[in-house]
Amino acid sequence: MIRSPDNDKLKTIRKLQQKRWREKLDLFAAEGEDLVEAAERAGWEPDFVLRAGEDVEPELLDAASVLGSGTRVIGVYPRRWGELHRSGAGQPAPSRTAVGDVLVYLHAVEDPGNVGAIVRSAHALAGATVVLGPGCADPFSPKAVRASMGSLFARPPARAAFEALPGHRLALDSGSGQPLGEVTLGDGPVVVCLGAEREGLPAELLEAADAVARIPLRPGGPDSLNVAMAATVALYEVERRMRGHA
Amino acid sequence: MIRSPDNDKLKTIRKLQQKRWREKLDLFAAEGEDLVEAAERAGWEPDFVLRAGEDVEPELLDAASVLGSGTRVIGVYPRRWGELHRSGAGQPAPSRTAVGDVLVYLHAVEDPGNVGAIVRSAHALAGATVVLGPGCADPFSPKAVRASMGSLFARPPARAAFEALPGHRLALDSGSGQPLGEVTLGDGPVVVCLGAEREGLPAELLEAADAVARIPLRPGGPDSLNVAMAATVALYEVERRMRGHA
Repeated sequence: MIRSPDNDKLKTIRKLQQKRWREKLDLFAAEGEDLVEAAERAGWEPDFVLRAGEDVEPELLDAASVLGSGTRVIGVYPRRWGELHRSGAGQPAPSRTAVGDVLVYLHAVEDPGNVGAIVRSAHALAGATVVLGPGCADPFSPKAVRASMGSLFARPPARAAFEALPGHRLALDSGSGQPLGEVTLGDGPVVVCLGAEREGLPAELLEAADAVARIPLRPGGPDSLNVAMAATVALYEVERRMRGHA
Repeated sequence: MIRSPDNDKLKTIRKLQQKRWREKLDLFAAEGEDLVEAAERAGWEPDFVLRAGEDVEPELLDAASVLGSGTRVIGVYPRRWGELHRSGAGQPAPSRTAVGDVLVYLHAVEDPGNVGAIVRSAHALAGATVVLGPGCADPFSPKAVRASMGSLFARPPARAAFEALPGHRLALDSGSGQPLGEVTLGDGPVVVCLGAEREGLPAELLEAADAVARIPLRPGGPDSLNVAMAATVALYEVERRMRGHA
């Protein structure tokens, strides 16, 4: 039972709140039963797990937590990134993240809560992996891990440049493009591409995309949705059209 | 020029970070140019507005802000709730919030960021007003106001019991109901109803609803979406079907 705040594991957990330590140690922390169970289900080996009252005095775990009082468990895991190798249909690729028929690409999405929420929506709606381009928030930050609700373990984000994306690149834009329900989806995997909250995707990526779509909004209201909302609507619509649920 | 942190207006702004003061004074604060402009566009008279460098020393405004350094403007407004009177088609009701053909009802949605994000999505996708049932977060809290991105002013939320909702009550549930794209929408206004993040809508509201719908999710993944994501997808789909954009 850990009874000192100077314990090395507690020190590690506190350090992992900072990005530079996550990069240096190549580890990250996940707090709460739901996340630690999600990691286990997805087959992730923790570096270590601390449970309040079993491994550590509850107050000491609370003090190392970003959520604060009442934290029951914190797990520390090696960072692991998804890969973009495409598996054949119906052939699972257990040792790596398989690319299914839908992907999400994010460019300069800086809010970790949005990145985590999109990881969750992509997994839930389309079994899809999120690919992070330049300027995105760290998906292993506490806020992103929490917002992913455990989907981070089942679908760890990949990193790639826009040019390296496989399949049909469908760029979302608030100001241009065809209505989402009418845009061409193509045959191969569809990559739904979204940019930063205010700026959207840069002009050169919109031009390089295979198609540009917008989500129809009512005139006179806001001219865009939050990026996580836009990603979720696009995933819903792509799934609806590809899989034919009316 | 305000040069003292003991100034009454600065004191008021600091108090309004707390719910009990918002209720006592019947006021709330909005930070940033975007929000203050959105209030003006929507015709809201502020109680007062403080601009850094014009009305107040910048450091003093920063200290009163929830966002912290670099705050340029904070406006304080009387709280105003939407109403559920239905206006005739094409007849604007300028003195009150008109109920259009879509509404969103929230039951026990406790996260202010989710409430604010749904206010924004409802406005953007459907020109819709959000109706708050019991147990919801305060839509005038700093987090909710910010997440609404100004839509709070154009579509101030209403308060009502589930029983008092007008029109066709379409309940979202993650575990039951017809696929969202197949469920009956009815003729009158559609009220999209959602419950708390984990529990969803209580059984008695699901039973009392006119229809129950679920958002189709992939098997093996998360069994629900974040409530703001679910609300946004439902609004998109209801709009798509009612207004016929493919």
